[in-house]
Amino acid sequence: MAKAELPIAPIDRLVRKAGAGRVSAEAAESLRDILQDLAIDIGKVAVDFARHAKRKTVVEDDVKLAYEQMKR
Amino acid sequence: MAKAELPIAPIDRLVRKAGAGRVSAEAAESLRDILQDLAIDIGKVAVDFARHAKRKTVVEDDVKLAYEQMKR
Repeated sequence: MAKAELPIAPIDRLVRKAGAGRVSAEAAESLRDILQDLAIDIGKVAVDFARHAKRKTVVEDDVKLAYEQMKR
Repeated sequence: MAKAELPIAPIDRLVRKAGAGRVSAEAAESLRDILQDLAIDIGKVAVDFARHAKRKTVVEDDVKLAYEQMKR
């Protein structure tokens, strides 16, 4: 699991936007860890796509294509 | 797409941790939108599981079970 990077307050807001009356601190932390793992997983595929295109910069299309591929 | 909630800087750090030399602003914003959509998707399932257990508070197990279900 990655070091904590994403802040908890916006994650709590997103779960409440999804319909939660209340979100425990542990629930928000667990979702933070899941989102960070997903960010790194998508990021690794995006980095591969950038390298494939001979770029050092990851651009929007790399991220979108990585996410599309991972949904399959 | 959800309103911007998650900050960009930690998302940029996560993609660089995944191996990126550089990440365009648009790429980080795109990943922010993807992560927010995933947070709401996982959150909605977690809310259903909390209600099923007759709780108003979403707890860690709701989030973990929601993510496991969505991976299938």
